[in-house]
Amino acid sequence: MTYPPRPSGRAPGQLRPIVITRNYTRHAEGSVLIEFGDTKVICTASIEDKVPAFLKGKGQGWLTAEYGMLPRSTHKRMDREAARGKQSGRTQEIQRLIGRSLRAAFNLHAFGERTLHLDCDVIQADGGTRTAAITGAMVAAHDAFSTLLSSCAITALPVRHFVAAVSVGMVNGVPVLDLDYPEDSDCDTDMNVVMNDQGHFIEVQGTAEGAAFDRAAMDRLLDLAQAGIADLIHLQKQALRVD
Amino acid sequence: MTYPPRPSGRAPGQLRPIVITRNYTRHAEGSVLIEFGDTKVICTASIEDKVPAFLKGKGQGWLTAEYGMLPRSTHKRMDREAARGKQSGRTQEIQRLIGRSLRAAFNLHAFGERTLHLDCDVIQADGGTRTAAITGAMVAAHDAFSTLLSSCAITALPVRHFVAAVSVGMVNGVPVLDLDYPEDSDCDTDMNVVMNDQGHFIEVQGTAEGAAFDRAAMDRLLDLAQAGIADLIHLQKQALRVD
Amino acid sequence: MTYPPRPSGRAPGQLRPIVITRNYTRHAEGSVLIEFGDTKVICTASIEDKVPAFLKGKGQGWLTAEYGMLPRSTHKRMDREAARGKQSGRTQEIQRLIGRSLRAAFNLHAFGERTLHLDCDVIQADGGTRTAAITGAMVAAHDAFSTLLSSCAITALPVRHFVAAVSVGMVNGVPVLDLDYPEDSDCDTDMNVVMNDQGHFIEVQGTAEGAAFDRAAMDRLLDLAQAGIADLIHLQKQALRVD
Amino acid sequence: MTYPPRPSGRAPGQLRPIVITRNYTRHAEGSVLIEFGDTKVICTASIEDKVPAFLKGKGQGWLTAEYGMLPRSTHKRMDREAARGKQSGRTQEIQRLIGRSLRAAFNLHAFGERTLHLDCDVIQADGGTRTAAITGAMVAAHDAFSTLLSSCAITALPVRHFVAAVSVGMVNGVPVLDLDYPEDSDCDTDMNVVMNDQGHFIEVQGTAEGAAFDRAAMDRLLDLAQAGIADLIHLQKQALRVD
Amino acid sequence: MTYPPRPSGRAPGQLRPIVITRNYTRHAEGSVLIEFGDTKVICTASIEDKVPAFLKGKGQGWLTAEYGMLPRSTHKRMDREAARGKQSGRTQEIQRLIGRSLRAAFNLHAFGERTLHLDCDVIQADGGTRTAAITGAMVAAHDAFSTLLSSCAITALPVRHFVAAVSVGMVNGVPVLDLDYPEDSDCDTDMNVVMNDQGHFIEVQGTAEGAAFDRAAMDRLLDLAQAGIADLIHLQKQALRVD
Amino acid sequence: MTYPPRPSGRAPGQLRPIVITRNYTRHAEGSVLIEFGDTKVICTASIEDKVPAFLKGKGQGWLTAEYGMLPRSTHKRMDREAARGKQSGRTQEIQRLIGRSLRAAFNLHAFGERTLHLDCDVIQADGGTRTAAITGAMVAAHDAFSTLLSSCAITALPVRHFVAAVSVGMVNGVPVLDLDYPEDSDCDTDMNVVMNDQGHFIEVQGTAEGAAFDRAAMDRLLDLAQAGIADLIHLQKQALRVD
Repeated sequence: MTYPPRPSGRAPGQLRPIVITRNYTRHAEGSVLIEFGDTKVICTASIEDKVPAFLKGKGQGWLTAEYGMLPRSTHKRMDREAARGKQSGRTQEIQRLIGRSLRAAFNLHAFGERTLHLDCDVIQADGGTRTAAITGAMVAAHDAFSTLLSSCAITALPVRHFVAAVSVGMVNGVPVLDLDYPEDSDCDTDMNVVMNDQGHFIEVQGTAEGAAFDRAAMDRLLDLAQAGIADLIHLQKQALRVD
Repeated sequence: MTYPPRPSGRAPGQLRPIVITRNYTRHAEGSVLIEFGDTKVICTASIEDKVPAFLKGKGQGWLTAEYGMLPRSTHKRMDREAARGKQSGRTQEIQRLIGRSLRAAFNLHAFGERTLHLDCDVIQADGGTRTAAITGAMVAAHDAFSTLLSSCAITALPVRHFVAAVSVGMVNGVPVLDLDYPEDSDCDTDMNVVMNDQGHFIEVQGTAEGAAFDRAAMDRLLDLAQAGIADLIHLQKQALRVD
Repeated sequence: MTYPPRPSGRAPGQLRPIVITRNYTRHAEGSVLIEFGDTKVICTASIEDKVPAFLKGKGQGWLTAEYGMLPRSTHKRMDREAARGKQSGRTQEIQRLIGRSLRAAFNLHAFGERTLHLDCDVIQADGGTRTAAITGAMVAAHDAFSTLLSSCAITALPVRHFVAAVSVGMVNGVPVLDLDYPEDSDCDTDMNVVMNDQGHFIEVQGTAEGAAFDRAAMDRLLDLAQAGIADLIHLQKQALRVD
Repeated sequence: MTYPPRPSGRAPGQLRPIVITRNYTRHAEGSVLIEFGDTKVICTASIEDKVPAFLKGKGQGWLTAEYGMLPRSTHKRMDREAARGKQSGRTQEIQRLIGRSLRAAFNLHAFGERTLHLDCDVIQADGGTRTAAITGAMVAAHDAFSTLLSSCAITALPVRHFVAAVSVGMVNGVPVLDLDYPEDSDCDTDMNVVMNDQGHFIEVQGTAEGAAFDRAAMDRLLDLAQAGIADLIHLQKQALRVD
Repeated sequence: MTYPPRPSGRAPGQLRPIVITRNYTRHAEGSVLIEFGDTKVICTASIEDKVPAFLKGKGQGWLTAEYGMLPRSTHKRMDREAARGKQSGRTQEIQRLIGRSLRAAFNLHAFGERTLHLDCDVIQADGGTRTAAITGAMVAAHDAFSTLLSSCAITALPVRHFVAAVSVGMVNGVPVLDLDYPEDSDCDTDMNVVMNDQGHFIEVQGTAEGAAFDRAAMDRLLDLAQAGIADLIHLQKQALRVD
Repeated sequence: MTYPPRPSGRAPGQLRPIVITRNYTRHAEGSVLIEFGDTKVICTASIEDKVPAFLKGKGQGWLTAEYGMLPRSTHKRMDREAARGKQSGRTQEIQRLIGRSLRAAFNLHAFGERTLHLDCDVIQADGGTRTAAITGAMVAAHDAFSTLLSSCAITALPVRHFVAAVSVGMVNGVPVLDLDYPEDSDCDTDMNVVMNDQGHFIEVQGTAEGAAFDRAAMDRLLDLAQAGIADLIHLQKQALRVD
């Protein structure tokens, strides 16, 4: 069976070129620029020596994430959220998703009463910003914990599982991996999948914006995601020089 | 294979008692009280004779949803969002989900330049408020469009598909349907599924708050959801006396 | 002297049918649905084991109230206050009124360092929502304190006086009791009166939206209110089975 | 019968010294400094040549009021509302009261599609700021309309009735007129009354913060208010040199 | 060389009539009405017996300023910032400027853990409100510290330097001192200068709204400011009867 | 005379290495990464085909600027302004400064009814972010207008003057150019100067945070700024390949 070609010429199960640049900015304990093709996100991981009020004295840490887009990271300039005085529902959804995904990656009981703040700021958007953010934040967080380890503040990295994310979707009836903006704005169904290095699911968020999809399509989309995430985790480990 | 019993004594694939009361309040074009066991949500559908600015003059309608909880609908009193001056991220996520789900149910091009406002207000919460809200809002919206039809403002109901929603999850390793609060607060994985009367997916939102889950578990959860939603759509049609 | 008939057919001094349903929802320490004809308000009373900062360590309790309307409780859908990000001046006025009225009903020094939160949420509005809210909140608060008493947290109910409220107004020159929406939107003068079981005044708030009114009218309105409130307090006590 | 003396030495029915200074600031169409003893309020009336959206094209005018206190107008410095980012419930109640009271004074159909903005800013507070504000705003509004008349924009002053306001209250069991701060913070009952030059009521807002009060007290308080307001209207007319 | 006359008839280096009225309102520890011609600002200084969190326990004091304009202090009514729910960028800039300027006047380590709040509220504006505010706030703060001294809370006035401010600008190519509103709205360049009694600079804020200005103009403007501020500090000391 | 060495080893009048990278991101009409040493700011210029309401129909354009810092652009993580729900006073001051400075660079009457939005986002901060932002925004705006010119929407570039900015300050009694963070946090006086390619002043904002400074110091600081800005404008023109 032959498919109509993707706008980018990629095969249905092919990721965009993925580039992970560590130590992108200077001040953060972990700082990564991640590129999924033309989508570019700065992910910084900052360690603070205290926890939110609801965890005080419980001997455990916390991990939280925030997400933003520069106003002209997009094709058309968007309003600046700081100027409008509130974050959109979409922004809040995404930062909650990043936070939950990364909390599944680390052992919150193994780095003391500290908070890891992940800031994911999109400087150029071309589809898939939230999956790039999760995948890059994993690396930034890993670097931040390595900094803690180097300073002897902890005795082992609190990593439970590597975590990465990718989008899949039905474009013109074809299941494809890692949608770019032209595909994303044109697709019937968009699903973001977060998995760990055991191939288990952490988050699945699928939306049929156009036509509802059947169980067979669902199954094929999950297959694509599983393979793509395995590749992404391989790239994360390569960037970090861990195996 | 035998399972540990559910707190409610229900079988793994058994819904809670579902009650749909139409015409619950007097002013709205559609007004439904839906009960999923002890979860009770008032869903009203209000028709306004204009559309948002971005659709003006395009000859189509719009459908939007808002969600709220009475402060003491829950076990412990929550702050009132109107008093705090903003809706939480959770509230925004849920109302965006309800809106997308119901827009998949109706043909927005078939009821003129009108807006259908769906208000889903939880008066008692015991788990599954968003799935009850979607399921009840379908009935309220149907009633509101019937009102329009009766007044000859439209010539046919703009229904594309009936839509309903249910939660599924892994509780102590067992896949179960329609989690109540004790199960919800205890589960490893929680997935909300929205489907239509063709058995196709509209939304899938799964979160592994505890342990990540494998593909086999995913498959069993989707099976449970599919069966539960078929039952819910049957109950919606019964309440509306349509077949 | 004969009067023009009221839209509802009631006599000038006649209340609407009053229904008080206790234990309306499950989680709150006190939960009441109160109906003044077609006006329906859920009043819940929640006990929290702490007081606001300004009372900490003073050995006394606090009582506070919040008020809201479901967006489609009214003839025309109103904006949701949580979505607009602030409570209207009207809402704040009403919840301040409810709070002051109920603080006059209970002895704040007789239930420890606790806060009683009263939430009055209108699910259907047909005039007189604030007076129904006060009258219902009295019963919900009484139930909440009975719960405290049953759990031996206090040794006696901290009730000073029963308190109830009713509206009176000049409609087409005739003083009438307990205005419903058609009368309310048409009247020259609207006065809300809160009194206790000794027949003493706690609050009087009269507004001549149309024509100013003279002292004689004022006197007749106060007479009507006094009689109506005596009836309402009788109904509260009946519902609570106290004398 | 003898009464305990008032802190100020005034007789129970005696107003504080009232001073009305017109043309207090330069830019406003009407600008008044009103003093009720040590309470000093700047009332300005500004005319704008348009009406709010809900009145556009209806050929009538509008009148609206805002109220504020300088942060150190009070004994203890209060937070600045502009800095806190919202007006308190008390502020909103007061400005709604001022607006309703003054709308009863003027014929909104007799000054074209214009808005009269009344700004009442307390520069020194010693009790009774809202009643001073209403009384002073009447004079400022009168001056603003006289400006319109001089410029031939209208052909007659749109005055229906002069309106003034005063507080009355029970202090140590004694009904007194025009409470100053020491009395206000100590009283059982505080009632603000707004009346017109026919001796008719426009607003009555009584609150029993301490002990509820009986009908006899109510009657005596209304008597005091009626006499005090007649005096205030006399002073307004004197200041404006109208009879 | 002759210049075109200023609208007010003043010489280029001539201040407007300056009037400093101490004890303008009753409650504040320091309260000054300052007039720069038709610009009138109430400056109050309030002492609070605590410091902000970031200074707690450090044994030093704090000084902070807020600025506001009555809505009709200006030629055209402005929106009330408290009603709009936020302070404009201009307001924030000005109050930050006042705070920095006055912190340079006093020794924050010499009045204990106290906060001095300066409130500068413009009741009539005719250009130069921020410079009048700084100049008046100096006097109000001095009075507040004298109150502390009288009560023996401190043993010496914590004054380092007297501080005053004035505007200078290029109007029709001519450098002038202390611009009033007609000059201010018409000028090419406007510069606000804050200096102390040693003739040293504390703040310089120049903006070329029309034509950029050269170094020679800059030099002449600084000369004018220096002379004007010396005069203002003389008037401050005269008002306070210090030399 | 010898000076104590600067932390960076630079001479007093030496700029940091300046790097201007055009076309840094893909979507904006102009996109520049500007580096003043370790300070890195993304400046994008976006053209919108409409003007704010106050300019509609006047046949002229508008130019406005916004400024932000990524939360971990700084040594210590700052709160995200979008999450806090408002921009700080500092942010507003800076974006107002950028807007005024760039409006002096271009002829607003020469590019039709369009708005140029300048977004300056700091990705790494090491002192002087606002001066880097102005200097980079000049280049981004130039590129955006070149895009308009290429598309024949305008017939000539609307450039009046090149504009650049730099900071100067007294560090340990020595006047220095282009302060980095260690100098900035340690200096007595900090002055930001904006000039054009004629050597004329557009903005001067000096603040003596520590010790006030005399006229001689002021003169030396202005000399340094003038020379530094001439160099920066040379670099801007080189980057744009204009002379």
